[in-house]
Amino acid sequence: MYSFKNDYSEGAHPQIMEALLKSNLEQTVGYGTDHYCDAARRIICEKIGREDADVHFLTGGTQTNLTVISAALRPYQAVISADSGHICVHETGAIEATGHKAIAMPAHSGKLTPSLIQKAVDTHTDEHMVQPKMVYISHPTEVGTIYSKAELEAISTCCKANGLLLFVDGARLASALTAQGSDVTLTDLARLSDAFYIGGTKCGAMFGEAVVLLNDAIKQDFRYMIKQRGGMFAKGRLLGIQFGELLCGDLYFELGRHANQMASLIKEACQSEGFSFVTDSVTNQQFPILPDTVLTQLEKNYLFEVWEKRSDGYTAVRFVTSWATHEQNVKQFVADLHSACKNSLG
Amino acid sequence: MYSFKNDYSEGAHPQIMEALLKSNLEQTVGYGTDHYCDAARRIICEKIGREDADVHFLTGGTQTNLTVISAALRPYQAVISADSGHICVHETGAIEATGHKAIAMPAHSGKLTPSLIQKAVDTHTDEHMVQPKMVYISHPTEVGTIYSKAELEAISTCCKANGLLLFVDGARLASALTAQGSDVTLTDLARLSDAFYIGGTKCGAMFGEAVVLLNDAIKQDFRYMIKQRGGMFAKGRLLGIQFGELLCGDLYFELGRHANQMASLIKEACQSEGFSFVTDSVTNQQFPILPDTVLTQLEKNYLFEVWEKRSDGYTAVRFVTSWATHEQNVKQFVADLHSACKNSLG
Amino acid sequence: MYSFKNDYSEGAHPQIMEALLKSNLEQTVGYGTDHYCDAARRIICEKIGREDADVHFLTGGTQTNLTVISAALRPYQAVISADSGHICVHETGAIEATGHKAIAMPAHSGKLTPSLIQKAVDTHTDEHMVQPKMVYISHPTEVGTIYSKAELEAISTCCKANGLLLFVDGARLASALTAQGSDVTLTDLARLSDAFYIGGTKCGAMFGEAVVLLNDAIKQDFRYMIKQRGGMFAKGRLLGIQFGELLCGDLYFELGRHANQMASLIKEACQSEGFSFVTDSVTNQQFPILPDTVLTQLEKNYLFEVWEKRSDGYTAVRFVTSWATHEQNVKQFVADLHSACKNSLG
Amino acid sequence: MYSFKNDYSEGAHPQIMEALLKSNLEQTVGYGTDHYCDAARRIICEKIGREDADVHFLTGGTQTNLTVISAALRPYQAVISADSGHICVHETGAIEATGHKAIAMPAHSGKLTPSLIQKAVDTHTDEHMVQPKMVYISHPTEVGTIYSKAELEAISTCCKANGLLLFVDGARLASALTAQGSDVTLTDLARLSDAFYIGGTKCGAMFGEAVVLLNDAIKQDFRYMIKQRGGMFAKGRLLGIQFGELLCGDLYFELGRHANQMASLIKEACQSEGFSFVTDSVTNQQFPILPDTVLTQLEKNYLFEVWEKRSDGYTAVRFVTSWATHEQNVKQFVADLHSACKNSLG
Repeated sequence: MYSFKNDYSEGAHPQIMEALLKSNLEQTVGYGTDHYCDAARRIICEKIGREDADVHFLTGGTQTNLTVISAALRPYQAVISADSGHICVHETGAIEATGHKAIAMPAHSGKLTPSLIQKAVDTHTDEHMVQPKMVYISHPTEVGTIYSKAELEAISTCCKANGLLLFVDGARLASALTAQGSDVTLTDLARLSDAFYIGGTKCGAMFGEAVVLLNDAIKQDFRYMIKQRGGMFAKGRLLGIQFGELLCGDLYFELGRHANQMASLIKEACQSEGFSFVTDSVTNQQFPILPDTVLTQLEKNYLFEVWEKRSDGYTAVRFVTSWATHEQNVKQFVADLHSACKNSLG
Repeated sequence: MYSFKNDYSEGAHPQIMEALLKSNLEQTVGYGTDHYCDAARRIICEKIGREDADVHFLTGGTQTNLTVISAALRPYQAVISADSGHICVHETGAIEATGHKAIAMPAHSGKLTPSLIQKAVDTHTDEHMVQPKMVYISHPTEVGTIYSKAELEAISTCCKANGLLLFVDGARLASALTAQGSDVTLTDLARLSDAFYIGGTKCGAMFGEAVVLLNDAIKQDFRYMIKQRGGMFAKGRLLGIQFGELLCGDLYFELGRHANQMASLIKEACQSEGFSFVTDSVTNQQFPILPDTVLTQLEKNYLFEVWEKRSDGYTAVRFVTSWATHEQNVKQFVADLHSACKNSLG
Repeated sequence: MYSFKNDYSEGAHPQIMEALLKSNLEQTVGYGTDHYCDAARRIICEKIGREDADVHFLTGGTQTNLTVISAALRPYQAVISADSGHICVHETGAIEATGHKAIAMPAHSGKLTPSLIQKAVDTHTDEHMVQPKMVYISHPTEVGTIYSKAELEAISTCCKANGLLLFVDGARLASALTAQGSDVTLTDLARLSDAFYIGGTKCGAMFGEAVVLLNDAIKQDFRYMIKQRGGMFAKGRLLGIQFGELLCGDLYFELGRHANQMASLIKEACQSEGFSFVTDSVTNQQFPILPDTVLTQLEKNYLFEVWEKRSDGYTAVRFVTSWATHEQNVKQFVADLHSACKNSLG
Repeated sequence: MYSFKNDYSEGAHPQIMEALLKSNLEQTVGYGTDHYCDAARRIICEKIGREDADVHFLTGGTQTNLTVISAALRPYQAVISADSGHICVHETGAIEATGHKAIAMPAHSGKLTPSLIQKAVDTHTDEHMVQPKMVYISHPTEVGTIYSKAELEAISTCCKANGLLLFVDGARLASALTAQGSDVTLTDLARLSDAFYIGGTKCGAMFGEAVVLLNDAIKQDFRYMIKQRGGMFAKGRLLGIQFGELLCGDLYFELGRHANQMASLIKEACQSEGFSFVTDSVTNQQFPILPDTVLTQLEKNYLFEVWEKRSDGYTAVRFVTSWATHEQNVKQFVADLHSACKNSLG
């Protein structure tokens, strides 16, 4: 049984394991104030070209989203998101639990646009309604698509015009930045957003997310927010070590590129069998719509997620690849898909 | 420079590192539903003699406290704690951030008593005040003391008589259960409390806490609570692997015993120099009150925390030992303390 | 200038003012434990045919909604509402401020249906999403429509089948229960819902809402919830006196009937001029779509709310009548509308 | 049976009832944007000598406290209060329900001091603890005492030196400002605090509190906060009318003076019988410590609150007078007290 269920099926990239092992018995101070974290912060600031950025390390995506969003908003303020956004769907109301409404806008291919943002602003007119104050986008989106630099610039401009903060969820940022056709860089994100995070958990780290704060209003007392929300990690150096390894050289991007290449093999196989897709994903998640007869055969040897059951004999499914996905397993899958299609037609 | 600053200065016990390495490239499902977590749950249920317990794995103490407490209480209900309790002092209002008041009772040596609990109940009489519904104790306490079995039984009886839930914070449980004079076992905790946690972060794990839920009212939908509060760990198996290693044999207790022995060397040294202590700690935290002249010398080679500055030329400090503390470093410290005392008197 | 802007432009019905005056210098105990409140509770229990109901008096609609909903839900649970529901649009995120998500379903004419409810349940499948636990409907809806008894029964059945609580917002209940074609009674509401409220503020009282709790799970410690949310009214008897007056005889229904009759005059006038409506309202709010040229003339003498600006030279507006609306003012309005239409065509 | 149980046993002062009656059928816009509210705001700004103040009208004290405090604090910030403060004891955790810790300092006679405030600041040193940001005092205190101008100035200076906001709960402000020996005026409060409220409910109004915001940081979007917390009163003009009546002339102060005079008669009677008091109250609440034998007799004809049961045959009780207390009833009470003392000694 081989799993395409998600990109956190394995542990960490061997280089990271080695770094953790090597430093294991060294004594450091706690809570992210150690020299490993400091070094990782410097590397990130350099990579994004912003010496003034504040960088914090957290252990998971939902924790990161709820901490950043609740740090940025006053009680009556709300965050605008695509209706498919992680915070709207898959975080068990974590944002609402901090007291804030997430305004879900009906988005195409998981992407917000200036016109959707403007509509959210224009329909919230006075103190009888929440006040939109932040825009949340995922890059890549939850359905594998990415924003172009021009799209991000337009969103950023729209945010500034409306006094909105822009926060980018980069849980799978390695995949987005290395996707075919991507023209967005880390420095673009630092230039265009008020906060974003560099995902580790789904991009080669054992665990961890690096939050980059660019707007002074969010920076203030952010460590208080982390602690209060339960995200202050005692052995903070574990996070610093991991992000140091991922980002001091090109490792983070290599891992993203690999995941994308593995996904593109699956994409091409589905295309060549003539299947359509939920979205035109260029990243490490693919959402083909496959015949149930084919899926029945694939299920015997592969794990994957059902995305949406349909009534026409087809089901949309999700295949996820990662830094750890072996090319031989993907090739075997492509072959098995081809056989299943033939059997199913036969 | 050697650190007695805390018990999370190093990484993880080598046996745990090995287990993480060995399983690193294995694929498992996420969010704690894998076979490693299942195995660790079975081991814990056996060890505590309660097959009906629900066991969940979280990544830190504050996260664990806020998740358990907010899962157990209705909005207007409060938790009773010693005024020195971690939730009252060192969690940046994490409990209040979930909407609940922590009722801080003035406690001696960090310990709650039935009479303090009863007083808290008796002074909250109607709907114009919060309703006490849970008692929170730390074992060991934040100042190194432990409860006897008789004391825990009395507290448990008092809780039951008043319809209160009992929750035990076991961040340093290994140290408490193996302390000299301790007559409390894991099965006692399971018998007397409604929920408790077995601390990993400060007891040899890389990170992680195992929450044991015994009362059905707290068990219900607890995974929703974990997710909403940002504590649902994607690669949950990392936690299962660690607690499996710690608890399948005697490792957890060995590590606690070692930490206590190292602390007792420090305690004896301070006693033989004639110093007094903030509390009579039998666990891995010691709180001697030392002359400032002595501390000035120790500071050159040792890290430790100032507990309370005084005006009489003495300062209460905290020395913490752990599974990783080397006996040779402690012996050197004892020698250095002795020299410092001599110099200071000379 | 005459106002059709809302149904809280005036104070209270004279009979209520008289009762308040008469009792003004009487001493009673506070917080709704007085004999006036007790009497009003008995009247309501009788009227709804449920001696076991708990009745509480609050001062406003948003306060009532947030108190009932947060009393009924555990932290990770959500309330399902029409996307036009008051809690989704016009309460500044009051529900989210108590930590809960409101799941907004796209509703036709402001009304939820069993199939919309079922869809909300079916798309929330596990602990990574909020758990729907309550259904919120407004009767009448925010756009003037009402539910039939058959519709309410179907919703109630759907709720029971899915373990959902049903809460009915009756801010304008007098208008709904006396609307032309209505076959719903107070006893129906008590039979079919778990909680509902009888609106006073918009139905003749100076202020106040009577919450009726039928489900034991919501009843428990509800006074604690009221107090914590800031809704415990010191001079509670003011609310008891008002609801006693409104409900001891037929006054509440008379006032609803009057408001509806005044609204129907406006409706008929708009119809006879050939205008269409946003919804087919049978209650005291009418939403005609009028030519901007006509509105420009009406604005000189009447206050009303713009509901939705359109790009075709028409604007949807809202006219609200109440217990206090004078027939002569409505007749003048009808005449003025007719003139404006003639002028505008001429 | 005559009640000294509280100062909200009756309705409203007749002059207020008259004003409400007179305006009853007038149409105004809602939510406090009407001309009555505007007029009342102008009167208050003049009375306090601060044209730049923002004035909002709310319906009760707990609602006011929770709205102001949660508007002023970021999530991890806390409010410092005397341990006897209303927010610490009698609001069912309303402040905590908005996510904030109230730091309770052990206060003498219900009063905070600069040294208590400084101690609270000094013991909250880093991001592992809440951050004190506001000081809450009640004037008069919950036990009837008042601050002198010098005391308020010292507290204000201490707040400014520590970056703390000062909020004064004036639920019974009429009584404090007219108490014998008081040298504090409304302009002093406006000069020394960042926010305070002028209590109506307990000072002659039917209901209502006037919040005065002086610090721009609290002013911003305050109407959003009111709405979200359920305090936006639909018929806002009812509050404007009441505060207009109370404050356009001297009525508010007359009513406070009367309540104090009635209380001083009770105080003197208790003193002349030789009884001691919980506090030396100069306002409308008196806390004598009376023999149980005397109380048994008084209970037959009077309602009052038991403040604290003691074990020496005495009980501390609370007698409250108000604008509505009749002198003849107080004189009768004094006579009855005297008889009871004689009987009890005989």
